[in-house]
Amino acid sequence: MKHKAPAKVTLVGSGNWGSTIALIIGRNAGRHSNDFDPEVRMWVHEEMINGRKLTEIINTQHENVKYLPGKKLSPNVTAIADLVTACVDSDILIFVIPHQFVENICMQLKGHLKEGALAISLIKGFLIDKKEGVIRLVSEGIRELLNIDTAVLMGANIAKEVANDEFAEATIGCKGQEEKWPMLKKLFENDNFRINLTKDSSTVELCGVLKNIVACAAGFADGLGYGSSTKAAIIRLGLLEITVFVELFYHGSNIQTYFESCGIGDLVATCIAGRNRKICEAFVKTKKSIKELEREMLNGQSVQGPAAAEAVFVMLNKYNMIAKFPLFVAVYQICTEKLAPNLLIERLRECSGELPDNWLRS
Amino acid sequence: MKHKAPAKVTLVGSGNWGSTIALIIGRNAGRHSNDFDPEVRMWVHEEMINGRKLTEIINTQHENVKYLPGKKLSPNVTAIADLVTACVDSDILIFVIPHQFVENICMQLKGHLKEGALAISLIKGFLIDKKEGVIRLVSEGIRELLNIDTAVLMGANIAKEVANDEFAEATIGCKGQEEKWPMLKKLFENDNFRINLTKDSSTVELCGVLKNIVACAAGFADGLGYGSSTKAAIIRLGLLEITVFVELFYHGSNIQTYFESCGIGDLVATCIAGRNRKICEAFVKTKKSIKELEREMLNGQSVQGPAAAEAVFVMLNKYNMIAKFPLFVAVYQICTEKLAPNLLIERLRECSGELPDNWLRS
Repeated sequence: MKHKAPAKVTLVGSGNWGSTIALIIGRNAGRHSNDFDPEVRMWVHEEMINGRKLTEIINTQHENVKYLPGKKLSPNVTAIADLVTACVDSDILIFVIPHQFVENICMQLKGHLKEGALAISLIKGFLIDKKEGVIRLVSEGIRELLNIDTAVLMGANIAKEVANDEFAEATIGCKGQEEKWPMLKKLFENDNFRINLTKDSSTVELCGVLKNIVACAAGFADGLGYGSSTKAAIIRLGLLEITVFVELFYHGSNIQTYFESCGIGDLVATCIAGRNRKICEAFVKTKKSIKELEREMLNGQSVQGPAAAEAVFVMLNKYNMIAKFPLFVAVYQICTEKLAPNLLIERLRECSGELPDNWLRS
Repeated sequence: MKHKAPAKVTLVGSGNWGSTIALIIGRNAGRHSNDFDPEVRMWVHEEMINGRKLTEIINTQHENVKYLPGKKLSPNVTAIADLVTACVDSDILIFVIPHQFVENICMQLKGHLKEGALAISLIKGFLIDKKEGVIRLVSEGIRELLNIDTAVLMGANIAKEVANDEFAEATIGCKGQEEKWPMLKKLFENDNFRINLTKDSSTVELCGVLKNIVACAAGFADGLGYGSSTKAAIIRLGLLEITVFVELFYHGSNIQTYFESCGIGDLVATCIAGRNRKICEAFVKTKKSIKELEREMLNGQSVQGPAAAEAVFVMLNKYNMIAKFPLFVAVYQICTEKLAPNLLIERLRECSGELPDNWLRS
């Protein structure tokens, strides 16, 4: 360890996934007291639950009764309602909020963070640069708005299963600061939550976002009544479109990254069990809109695949690349009711099913 | 086409998968009459069904009532009970029989085949060279026993789904005879059964066999009650053990092959829906032996994963490589009741999760 003082850690966010991560890092910070300040701060968007503040419930019952009921956080996890108070002096800031709040949260934090702090984003979504009509990675947004190094953590890890301590994996992408990699591993890893690190951070993050588009296609296929052969083809063809997209817009990925948990792992888990798959299956079967289904099936929470498909479509259109991505484009068109779901299969026939020409790199 | 005469095609085998392939190639041989002799011969191991010969039923009703009931073969598919009669003069011989019959069938065919004939194996299993204590690919066995070029066809294609004309893919591995690739594609491909060809034939075949071992691990995890995060980790770690095994024993694979239908496609389909997964789930839940479960659940048909795991274990043991393959070895030990299924998770922690060092090749 190069740090003189133990590192202070803050979770920016306290939803279902954030609270699950709080379970893990609360215990780890307690165990590795040479490395981490035992207090793990968690910024909580304050709300009232049966007349009590959520922060007060978390700090007395050690349970996020709203977003992760039934799981006890270790007592060193402290809920804090004020964002700057939660983050000031922190060495590691874990961002786990809906992607549409990233810019606002960063604006509030700007100028209040410790020099040399490291952000790590667990957020799966794109930021849209409306002026330029292009997408930006959430990590790029945080890096630019706060002027701090920003890593990402993605992978095949469904919150409920991780919270139940089932075996799962994750990939951390961290471009620089390799001296901090052992500390990041210590912070997140335990016997049943296994971490690999790579510097190929953009690929890690892009896999995390783009896989939701593929999961939509898998859901449409389920809705149409196709079996595992078709779903396997969609997963394969979708993975190849991901590799081509990454190469085109974030040139220089490492093929090993697609073999990490963030790559095939997350893609498979999401296409089997994720909510994008589920909503898109219902979309075909019920003929309701995605928006309606989100209200009915997810309590108003939104699925990220359709938005990601739209963002990608805007990019592809701008750069005249639509023909190279039949699967991504079909998902966008089906979600927006410009294409009948059963025409998905025609688009699959147009997929090249090949890695980018220049993928060989280490 | 370099052939003067249209190519004669024979199916050696008429089980569920063989009959499904007969559906496809019967239609294709009829459509492409410049390329193929319209008569597609199918060798049928004769049996009596309600007092009638199966060959006679197939040749009058155009349906394999025992192994693919309800699906009409095109009338140009002719069932023949005599093996040599079915194969003599054929240009393309499609082997689709249980792997334990390969050597016997080849011995019967030896000396009776047309010079320059091409075999294509759809068989997923190893041959065991008992004298040397090593495994051999089925294609290697056919090639050596009959002295003919032997290609393979593998992929994420579940017989029932392909027979129902659902969208599926397959990979043909064909080391030489590239002038015959267009003909092979014409023979097997249709709008809903998509074929890619590669010369990396050994990798194609090894993926087809080894994926069943991974599916056993996925089944154990299902039996233990784990969710998709654990299954995704098993698929990922299993795929990486496949790449390392192939590199070690069949040096020189092409990374693109793992992105083909025979690679991630088949692995995913088999781990979601295959019978190895199903039997191994039941193995954990019922505590019955694999043999008992095969009798109860598969009408005595055998699953290939446990046998493949044993064959691989023998190889790894011989070459002192057991420590490099924690997942494969765990499956062998669990199937043979040398390891409790719940210890699978400990073994997963030992997996390297990395591609072979020297994988970069095109």
